[in-house]
Amino acid sequence: MRTQGMDALFSPKSVAIIGASGDPKRIGGRPVDYLKRYGFGGPIYPINPKRDVVQGLKAYPSIGAVDGFVDLAIIAMPAPLAVQAVRDCAAKGVRGVVVFSSGFAEMDADGEALQAQMVAIAQEAGMRIVGPNCLGIANVRENLFATFTTGVEQALPSVGGVSIVSQSGAFGAFCLQLAVNRGIGINLWSTTGNSCDVDFADSLAYCAEDPNTKVIMGYLEGATDRGRFLDALSLARDRGKPVVMMKVGRSEVGADAAQSHTASLAGSDAIYDAALRQYGVYRAQSVDDMLDATYACAAGGSFMNSDRLGLVTVSGGVGVLMADEAEVQGLDVAALPESSQAKLKEALPFAGVRNPVDVTAQMVNQIDLLELNMDVLFGEGDYDAAIIFMSGVGLIKSLNDQIRPILKKIRAKYPGRPMIFCSLTSPEERQLYEESGFLVFDEPTRAVRALAALRFFSEAFKRHKAADPLPEIGVIPELPPAMVNEIEAKEILAKTGLGIVREVLAKTPDEAADAAQDIGFPIVVKIASPDILHKSDIGGVVLNLTSKEAVHEAAQSVLTNAASAMPDAKIDGIVVAEQAAPGLEAIVGVTRDALFGPVVMFGLGGVLVEALEDVSFRIAPFGPAEAHLMIEEIHGKKLLGAFRGAAARDVDAIADALSRLSVFAAAHPETLESIDVNPLIVGEVGKGVVAADAVIIPVEK
Amino acid sequence: MRTQGMDALFSPKSVAIIGASGDPKRIGGRPVDYLKRYGFGGPIYPINPKRDVVQGLKAYPSIGAVDGFVDLAIIAMPAPLAVQAVRDCAAKGVRGVVVFSSGFAEMDADGEALQAQMVAIAQEAGMRIVGPNCLGIANVRENLFATFTTGVEQALPSVGGVSIVSQSGAFGAFCLQLAVNRGIGINLWSTTGNSCDVDFADSLAYCAEDPNTKVIMGYLEGATDRGRFLDALSLARDRGKPVVMMKVGRSEVGADAAQSHTASLAGSDAIYDAALRQYGVYRAQSVDDMLDATYACAAGGSFMNSDRLGLVTVSGGVGVLMADEAEVQGLDVAALPESSQAKLKEALPFAGVRNPVDVTAQMVNQIDLLELNMDVLFGEGDYDAAIIFMSGVGLIKSLNDQIRPILKKIRAKYPGRPMIFCSLTSPEERQLYEESGFLVFDEPTRAVRALAALRFFSEAFKRHKAADPLPEIGVIPELPPAMVNEIEAKEILAKTGLGIVREVLAKTPDEAADAAQDIGFPIVVKIASPDILHKSDIGGVVLNLTSKEAVHEAAQSVLTNAASAMPDAKIDGIVVAEQAAPGLEAIVGVTRDALFGPVVMFGLGGVLVEALEDVSFRIAPFGPAEAHLMIEEIHGKKLLGAFRGAAARDVDAIADALSRLSVFAAAHPETLESIDVNPLIVGEVGKGVVAADAVIIPVEK
Repeated sequence: MRTQGMDALFSPKSVAIIGASGDPKRIGGRPVDYLKRYGFGGPIYPINPKRDVVQGLKAYPSIGAVDGFVDLAIIAMPAPLAVQAVRDCAAKGVRGVVVFSSGFAEMDADGEALQAQMVAIAQEAGMRIVGPNCLGIANVRENLFATFTTGVEQALPSVGGVSIVSQSGAFGAFCLQLAVNRGIGINLWSTTGNSCDVDFADSLAYCAEDPNTKVIMGYLEGATDRGRFLDALSLARDRGKPVVMMKVGRSEVGADAAQSHTASLAGSDAIYDAALRQYGVYRAQSVDDMLDATYACAAGGSFMNSDRLGLVTVSGGVGVLMADEAEVQGLDVAALPESSQAKLKEALPFAGVRNPVDVTAQMVNQIDLLELNMDVLFGEGDYDAAIIFMSGVGLIKSLNDQIRPILKKIRAKYPGRPMIFCSLTSPEERQLYEESGFLVFDEPTRAVRALAALRFFSEAFKRHKAADPLPEIGVIPELPPAMVNEIEAKEILAKTGLGIVREVLAKTPDEAADAAQDIGFPIVVKIASPDILHKSDIGGVVLNLTSKEAVHEAAQSVLTNAASAMPDAKIDGIVVAEQAAPGLEAIVGVTRDALFGPVVMFGLGGVLVEALEDVSFRIAPFGPAEAHLMIEEIHGKKLLGAFRGAAARDVDAIADALSRLSVFAAAHPETLESIDVNPLIVGEVGKGVVAADAVIIPVEK
Repeated sequence: MRTQGMDALFSPKSVAIIGASGDPKRIGGRPVDYLKRYGFGGPIYPINPKRDVVQGLKAYPSIGAVDGFVDLAIIAMPAPLAVQAVRDCAAKGVRGVVVFSSGFAEMDADGEALQAQMVAIAQEAGMRIVGPNCLGIANVRENLFATFTTGVEQALPSVGGVSIVSQSGAFGAFCLQLAVNRGIGINLWSTTGNSCDVDFADSLAYCAEDPNTKVIMGYLEGATDRGRFLDALSLARDRGKPVVMMKVGRSEVGADAAQSHTASLAGSDAIYDAALRQYGVYRAQSVDDMLDATYACAAGGSFMNSDRLGLVTVSGGVGVLMADEAEVQGLDVAALPESSQAKLKEALPFAGVRNPVDVTAQMVNQIDLLELNMDVLFGEGDYDAAIIFMSGVGLIKSLNDQIRPILKKIRAKYPGRPMIFCSLTSPEERQLYEESGFLVFDEPTRAVRALAALRFFSEAFKRHKAADPLPEIGVIPELPPAMVNEIEAKEILAKTGLGIVREVLAKTPDEAADAAQDIGFPIVVKIASPDILHKSDIGGVVLNLTSKEAVHEAAQSVLTNAASAMPDAKIDGIVVAEQAAPGLEAIVGVTRDALFGPVVMFGLGGVLVEALEDVSFRIAPFGPAEAHLMIEEIHGKKLLGAFRGAAARDVDAIADALSRLSVFAAAHPETLESIDVNPLIVGEVGKGVVAADAVIIPVEK
């Protein structure tokens, strides 16, 4: 268990500060000040050989001199001295250490060596380390502030269900301050710095296990270990805890900066993006988005169980704006039933009643109509969430005093559906609405996006619980030790259950002509060689052959062309293949990501992949339901449905193929470099898919 | 001049309130209260036949009884009485009227008739009307609040350079309150309601002419008149005034709601989007975006003259985040020169120095290094804007007192480039930074987007000043009175200067064979008929003909196929055309938008247009420079460059063709239904484009 021993870090019985300073503004002085000031419950032991008293507390010349048990030690010393301090901690029987000091692996090779030394000492002693080069950790519930961030100097976050895990200290501190501003209650906070022992994944897993954590907000530049990272995300999902993640490094400049910043594996951003979605993590697009989604998860307590969104507004314009944003976010501003519209129209003749329900400013003069309105919305409209946009009404206490009791009643009558009160408000009014069970936003498009985040988690958790078993492949085929020709490649893939075209390897043009007769025309003839990847480019492919003679001639010509273009290539013979019935061409592949290992790719062939990079990814292995989502993600998916006279395509067969390929790839994580099935011919519904060409490349030894 | 007489509305010397109430909470009471309370400079005349005094002011039984000159009258009466009030105003010589009353065109046909009556009275008297069914107008500088919005009851906006024009009253009021919250100073504010006389375009034009308006923030559901709308946008651009617009109705639900809300022409959202871009209007994506862009324009005073963005950050993580967002927004986080990086590295050994410059939390201990840093950035890095991200530092007064003088110095040394101080701050500190010439944001991605808005305006204004003359077409060809066959259609387009394939109309298969011989092989044969739009579908096209015999046979076959598939179609003969050298296929077209009239469309052929709707639009006419921007907008544009072995395409020739088509289309705004050039074959650079097929459809009479 990677979270073993982390209780000593986040819930220690006593804390020592090695390098404790009498000045509460210095790095070694801040944690002493915070622990004291905010009332940490256990003993605090400042360690400072030059002083008897530090900030009014008895100080000790060394950790060894402390007369009690030390659970957690904070080390605020220059790098070389920090290593000795870790050694002293180990000797004393300390269980957890937070190392603030920089000058380790982030610095140079010497620093890296020092860091390795520190890790060795801790491991031998069974001691956990956070850092080095970090801003520390906190447990707000237990008044534990093992940090020197100035972010908690002015205002403390309230205690709540959100835990923050940040690879960056400064970003973590920023999040803490944002949480204070937004009134989001915090439980645990951790910055992992160089992550010499406890890393982002460990902290995330710890939060997932922590009973007081309800929502996890993460900041990630790059993970270091596929298994730990994905396991932590799975654990959070198992426990039903939403993870809202800011993963930076989308852009080239950003990725370079992130990598130099944390020395983490970069990984492709597109693949991170896919992995986060696959594991049910909401990837925030901005700081606002991160805070909004976190707030909605933490303050709300219910997700959004269908796409149906009801909108009530005092401004028709804002109603339109919210409906626009809902469409972008995939939410459905479905119309109220005709009968309900008629009922509302009778009560509110000026109102727009379809949904958005535009009650107009008139509402302010007839506030009791709000109850009817909301009752119709939830009772008859069957919406799973609502936004009530009130413009500046929320600023006016007298109006709030009339509105809130009505909304509270509705809130109680229709539980389990998020409701947002969207208005400018004062902090006091805001809090009262929140206590009444409403989320409060002042920006209407952000309110819609926050609901989309709740919808995302509802779907992610539901999907996670649903069975999506991997296909049964039986004996998973071995990888070839080296490159093989396309026939052999397809034979291997056929053993996983992938459809392939009927084909034969002929040794001579005569054999080719006979084989063609057996298979039936039209026929494709291709050069068979493990060394020739781009057969068309050297005249190694002839299509549309409709007679034995034509096949004979074509077989001769591909042999001649190959011999002249690539005289050193090993020639295995001639592929004689049925020409697949015209279908939609797709591309299916596997690549090996530096972090995530085998990753399956899907795209439609031709210009969509080439010019638009319209492809989607999933971490292998995965079941067919996940594969369907993967197929849904491409922009050109319209081409898979009935489109412009062409019949709908066999999407189930694509999903099956992707899933089988993922199982095969996952069985060879270290030895498979890539697979490229191009084209995969996709037939009409029920007609399946066939691989018309395939390349399997093992990792070079 | 559509803005004639509007001074009486926005800068009246005296104001009467017809339907004035003694209760300052009623619709007829609020404007009296606001005008009095906020100190409107001229006489205020409450009109109320039942009272002598209203809210402490002398009241008059009728407008005619007022003993002075009335410049502006506010009408707060039920609809039928409002018409009489307008008549009384006309008799009294009132110059401008604001009608709050609802129950007019937005209601039913009777209301529409009442509204028409009101307009007729006003027009005859040369009186301007705002409304009816509106929330009124304001001139904050002159303390004129001719409105009943509760939005100014609690806090008034400060006076400033932003004017707000809103088609929706409630949205306009919301904007006013948001401006107060954000500290954005306002000049004029107007809500246009039913727009019976003064409409959105008029108000926008008035703001464009108003010397105290620097930036215009607009809310639009739908314009009613192409000319007035586009003229107003042009005027604003001529005066160098940024227009930040919230145009709602992107989604289907939203568009329906907007249309029923204002009874405006819907128009296609994609075309609105293109028109706004073409006219240099920044289209906001959210309320935050609208406020941010407006604030940046109003508070900054300088745009961003190149894409180069310098980033300084105390958090490496936020640096990465901002770099990511910059890429999305098309800004260039270019590296500092090597020598400058070395210089910074020497002073700040812990820092990341490429750009983003990550000064780390260390900066707080060495604040003087900030000056060196900023000096290097602007002096050597040649960036046209910078964001200094300071996390929560802006909350700490003592630090601000050290930082601000340094930033001020840099601000003065490098004028004309926007600089953003991005940090959590108190309102007081925020104001001090703003007074020092900095924009202040607390959300880093929003800071980046605000700079992108400034960059947008810089480009839009530059483009507007640059000459982009329309191509000289000479005599613009007439439109055919009815559908013509493709040869005739192409002949018409050829007269505009568009390249077309060499082709001949043959009457018989014999003639076709001879013509083919003259043109040279390969040849395409097509049926020529004004009645057959989809020739391929009925076997009316044969490609790749390489001999006289083949042409003869094909000509016979297309005649037979046409006769059998569409026996009633008028057959003009057979098109014998050179088969254009293989090139990239594009689609170029013209459609007639209900609002904007002739609109030119561009897309690449095939699946990109069909499945992805990857097309761009421009309002006709436009020059080739604008056409280049239009081409740049499509997602598949990569295919136009050198790509996967194919040579780069003749984009100049496409731009020329689009621009010529636009001039032709603009010359026939009422009579041209559509043009469809599909495919336009795009040759390699320097090889031009040719229309291989064309359809021109005149408006049915």
